[in-house]
Amino acid sequence: MTMIFGILAFNNLEELDAIGPWEVLSWAAKQEQSDMEVFMIGSSGKEITCAKGLKITTDYTIDDHPPLDVILVPGGQGTRPIFKDGGPEIDWIKKVSPGCTWVTSVCTGALLFHRAGILKGKRATTHWGSIDVLRNAGGVEVIEGVRYVRDGNLVTSSGVSAGIDMSLWLIGKIYGSDFARFVQKGIEYFPAPPYTAET
Amino acid sequence: MTMIFGILAFNNLEELDAIGPWEVLSWAAKQEQSDMEVFMIGSSGKEITCAKGLKITTDYTIDDHPPLDVILVPGGQGTRPIFKDGGPEIDWIKKVSPGCTWVTSVCTGALLFHRAGILKGKRATTHWGSIDVLRNAGGVEVIEGVRYVRDGNLVTSSGVSAGIDMSLWLIGKIYGSDFARFVQKGIEYFPAPPYTAET
Repeated sequence: MTMIFGILAFNNLEELDAIGPWEVLSWAAKQEQSDMEVFMIGSSGKEITCAKGLKITTDYTIDDHPPLDVILVPGGQGTRPIFKDGGPEIDWIKKVSPGCTWVTSVCTGALLFHRAGILKGKRATTHWGSIDVLRNAGGVEVIEGVRYVRDGNLVTSSGVSAGIDMSLWLIGKIYGSDFARFVQKGIEYFPAPPYTAET
Repeated sequence: MTMIFGILAFNNLEELDAIGPWEVLSWAAKQEQSDMEVFMIGSSGKEITCAKGLKITTDYTIDDHPPLDVILVPGGQGTRPIFKDGGPEIDWIKKVSPGCTWVTSVCTGALLFHRAGILKGKRATTHWGSIDVLRNAGGVEVIEGVRYVRDGNLVTSSGVSAGIDMSLWLIGKIYGSDFARFVQKGIEYFPAPPYTAET
């Protein structure tokens, strides 16, 4: 059975939040061992400008896309007004998430999940700088200091780069750990940050 | 003095090769402590389709862009025909690299540097799957099993995700390690791949 992954793209999303997972998932999708497709889905037409200025053109919009098995909601400054005031992104999450096998977020994408009501009574995480915001929003058990948190079919990641780790974990859950390791080797993801301790 | 970073974008570049560094560099550029700008520079107009299908619109083209202090050349399947047959990307590397403070590549971007003649007598690396290709091309000391190699102002990275590590190192060289750690924390780059050993 083909699994269809949809990454939500809205203006001012943080670039790596979306493209880190895109790399892992679309690299996996190109291999014989998987049966999956990955799409970018724009929330205000197909032309999206990210938080740091990168301009992307999505495959679909939230008004017209194939049925999805997995959604991934990235974070970034663009989440702030949506978290506060709502918007079509929230309506979309409410509409599509109940039919999904996996519902995932990166960074402050978790704030949109909170606004959509799908974190109620769940354990979740977000970017370290938004842990208090999510905790103060209430009704969710916020976990900090971890790369990602699974609660049922809901998987929330910490900040920006954590989506790469989470996506590899997800590929392992769906297609097995051997395949996930193969993907990891393909993108040579054996990270070695030049600084290993925080200041 | 403002440092201008240019990331070369060509069709079939590997997404994370370019967007990993873009995230690090453009996150840094947004902070007061740095004085830098980061641009995507398209080699065949501004509309570029990456190897896994992501469509981006660049800031400039190779025919019209501000003077650059740093270039970053990503890799991906799109490098193969350019490595074999040459192209405007090679002419551009030859033209702009002599005036740059730093000349950097990710993954098989190193193959384009070889074609442009700037690896002659240097130490360099590339994606693990292209180590032999680069070695067989000759005239370069190929180092394997490392995230990036510096030889003077030339810095070449291993595959795909290694550009994130290299970009953080570069930010540390230019703006100091405290600032690089600040950027690292901003993008919460404390990676924890779910699989830590190769199969």
